[in-house]
Amino acid sequence: MDEKKTFDEAAEEIVSLAGEKHFKTIREKLLVFNSPDIAEILEEVLEEVGITETVIIFRLLPKDISVEVFSYLPSDDQVRIINAITDTEISYIIDELDFDDKIDVLEELPANLVDKILEKTPKNERSLINTFLNYPEDCAGTLMTPDYISLEQSWTVRRALRHIKNVGMDSETVYTCYVKSAGRVLEGIVSLRTLVVSDDDVLISDLMHTDIVSINVYEDQEEVSEKFKKYGFIAIPVVDNEKRLVGIITVDDIFDVIEEEATEDMERMAGVLDDSDTEYLDMSVWQQVKNRFPWLFFLMLSYILTGSIISTSEATLASVPALIIYMPMLMGTGGNSGSQSATLVIRGLSVGDIELKDALRVLWKEFRISFVIGLSLSVLNFVRVMIEQRGDPLQVQIALTVSVAMVAIVVAAKCIGSMLPMAAKKVGIDPALMASPMISSLTDMVSIGTYLLLAGAFLGVIG
Amino acid sequence: MDEKKTFDEAAEEIVSLAGEKHFKTIREKLLVFNSPDIAEILEEVLEEVGITETVIIFRLLPKDISVEVFSYLPSDDQVRIINAITDTEISYIIDELDFDDKIDVLEELPANLVDKILEKTPKNERSLINTFLNYPEDCAGTLMTPDYISLEQSWTVRRALRHIKNVGMDSETVYTCYVKSAGRVLEGIVSLRTLVVSDDDVLISDLMHTDIVSINVYEDQEEVSEKFKKYGFIAIPVVDNEKRLVGIITVDDIFDVIEEEATEDMERMAGVLDDSDTEYLDMSVWQQVKNRFPWLFFLMLSYILTGSIISTSEATLASVPALIIYMPMLMGTGGNSGSQSATLVIRGLSVGDIELKDALRVLWKEFRISFVIGLSLSVLNFVRVMIEQRGDPLQVQIALTVSVAMVAIVVAAKCIGSMLPMAAKKVGIDPALMASPMISSLTDMVSIGTYLLLAGAFLGVIG
Repeated sequence: MDEKKTFDEAAEEIVSLAGEKHFKTIREKLLVFNSPDIAEILEEVLEEVGITETVIIFRLLPKDISVEVFSYLPSDDQVRIINAITDTEISYIIDELDFDDKIDVLEELPANLVDKILEKTPKNERSLINTFLNYPEDCAGTLMTPDYISLEQSWTVRRALRHIKNVGMDSETVYTCYVKSAGRVLEGIVSLRTLVVSDDDVLISDLMHTDIVSINVYEDQEEVSEKFKKYGFIAIPVVDNEKRLVGIITVDDIFDVIEEEATEDMERMAGVLDDSDTEYLDMSVWQQVKNRFPWLFFLMLSYILTGSIISTSEATLASVPALIIYMPMLMGTGGNSGSQSATLVIRGLSVGDIELKDALRVLWKEFRISFVIGLSLSVLNFVRVMIEQRGDPLQVQIALTVSVAMVAIVVAAKCIGSMLPMAAKKVGIDPALMASPMISSLTDMVSIGTYLLLAGAFLGVIG
Repeated sequence: MDEKKTFDEAAEEIVSLAGEKHFKTIREKLLVFNSPDIAEILEEVLEEVGITETVIIFRLLPKDISVEVFSYLPSDDQVRIINAITDTEISYIIDELDFDDKIDVLEELPANLVDKILEKTPKNERSLINTFLNYPEDCAGTLMTPDYISLEQSWTVRRALRHIKNVGMDSETVYTCYVKSAGRVLEGIVSLRTLVVSDDDVLISDLMHTDIVSINVYEDQEEVSEKFKKYGFIAIPVVDNEKRLVGIITVDDIFDVIEEEATEDMERMAGVLDDSDTEYLDMSVWQQVKNRFPWLFFLMLSYILTGSIISTSEATLASVPALIIYMPMLMGTGGNSGSQSATLVIRGLSVGDIELKDALRVLWKEFRISFVIGLSLSVLNFVRVMIEQRGDPLQVQIALTVSVAMVAIVVAAKCIGSMLPMAAKKVGIDPALMASPMISSLTDMVSIGTYLLLAGAFLGVIG
């Protein structure tokens, strides 16, 4: 806690020093922090002071640190800095970045700038970069790096360790090493732990694991993060369709994926369509409108049906206007009950606690839960309506209508709310699209229909 | 994809073999898989066939593999197996488990069983286990393990590597090593990478980092996962209030934390209170009712206010019953607009894209977005109502009421939806509690109030 406070205070101090252009003091104060912290502070300076000051501070950092700091900045800030520095500086940064960070940056830059940078890259690397830039978005290929350590089956542990000593600093990780056949097919994996606990003369072929967990280069990033979660590995090799090793993905690149995937789920569950990874504050009003309008419009259309259900019962409502008072409560409770169930089922499907074959078990469970909840709310409402409508000759009928509708609505909403996401998954639609907004609109229709039907029955006035 | 299919088929085959009690064949088929896969298959057997068959298969596995498989099972399945095996078997498993897995299992077992197990544990370890069992839930202490590698400042790289070779197999990780002072205060960190790329005679004191990122043992698990995300480390040391090293947390234990935290957020956002980590299908109907009833009840109460707003306008509604038709649509659209904004802001706050100081920027953004969306929906609805109410002498007035109400409601809903989570955070309430259900109930009230007020104004009949 204290530590966090100190950091926040230091960050604030540096931001205000940047405003007063005390750059030399800033440099000293920054250099006590590690690169992710410096990056966080630069982000604040960029947001609150400006790009000119940020670039000056950035240039004052020792060169190796500045590249590391750059790699920890969010991609839109990286682009802003790239646009404000010289071509020589850009080339230096791009050259020095780890391969996977390099690809991430190049992906965000405009094509003509990428071309200019690639012109200065050696031919070998240029074609590798182009291959990486061409992998489809959100696939394993965009997460991997080609900087891994290769060992030979015939090597001894001594030779392998000597090799790692020579190339270890240029690799993304040295903790998992890979053994390939002549045709670049992945044959085995050895961890550095195994190497350091083994005797010097043991052969790699005797140490390597051959039951390999790998990822296809075109696999979706969600499946990649599932594998990391399941196996707890530090790195997983990526192979092409011919099982040739093309790169590795390390665990530190998976956190962003998990965060992105959870954000995507939550946004979809709220009826927001968003394909970008842009942060809320950086997204234009126009883009936000485009993300949010479609579902609102679609859901609004669904209320035309709800409206027409009401218009068939206009006579009932006009003759017993007290009925209108309870409509919002029944609709709201139906919507809330439904979205509770929908959320639990969507999350259960997404983390693997619930599978499609569990549909009947889920339905039976929701039925019992909703019956208990519905009945309790129903009794409470019977009492409430009896009190509120005392003196009205239709008092009992209205109370019966509301309380019977309550049970029916909660049960229906929870059953619909739990089954709709499973049905969506069954036909290949993302269950997250079937959350609150969708369920509320649907249960509103059911709620009003049920309510008015019961009103007709109990009050003897059918629409 | 193919790989996944093969695994699923194999799992299904083993489940059906278990039903037919062909245990020897199962053993052979299981042993081609690695432990996380075997655990996944055993889970299916337990669910679909039964505990007796699962225990038989579990006993047929080689002892070391059975312990590993056990550590990958979900905790409720672990408890079921523990309850079905002999005390000797339990002791063996508990003894062999990694320390952090051991603590996880012991936490789930009833106190008398834990006492029985601890009786057989050496005194030293027993008191360590007791310390770990007493850390409050969800704090860093419950995630850490004391099995880390300690080095001395005065050692050479050669000596350090020899030490790692001796103790490396019993450590949770060998990739980060720790240097402590005489008083157990953490003084430095050396990665195994640094050791293997350095020359044999270099001293640890010359290699170790002293700008240490550490976690306090009582820090919340959410902050722990934030640190892993920010720094991309494989392991982070845990220190007590006196800065003494008490354990380490490794990255593989963070995935569960991230998943748990996201689930908790989503559940709260849907108005489900759930303190346990129990899976949906394993939770009793009664517990589910207890988790879901409170918010539904509280929200239902809020509709008493909505009801009384309506009752003040009963006369207006009775004289122009057409107005009732558009009520659900306005309420629904308000609710949906509000929950879009609430979700985006809650998520933004939780991943750090939005901070409290951005409140005005967010409000201004939401205002513009909602104005554009509200106006578009308003125009569409004006046309719709004009068509639907053609022939009615109040046609224009009704259309005006609905369309002006639409703009006002969308703007109000989005401003409330975005500001309420920020206000909650400001006063120390979890913003996730201010999501759809809460926002819908509140916007329903605002929507109906606005609508009826406008109806009074345009139609000249005030309640």
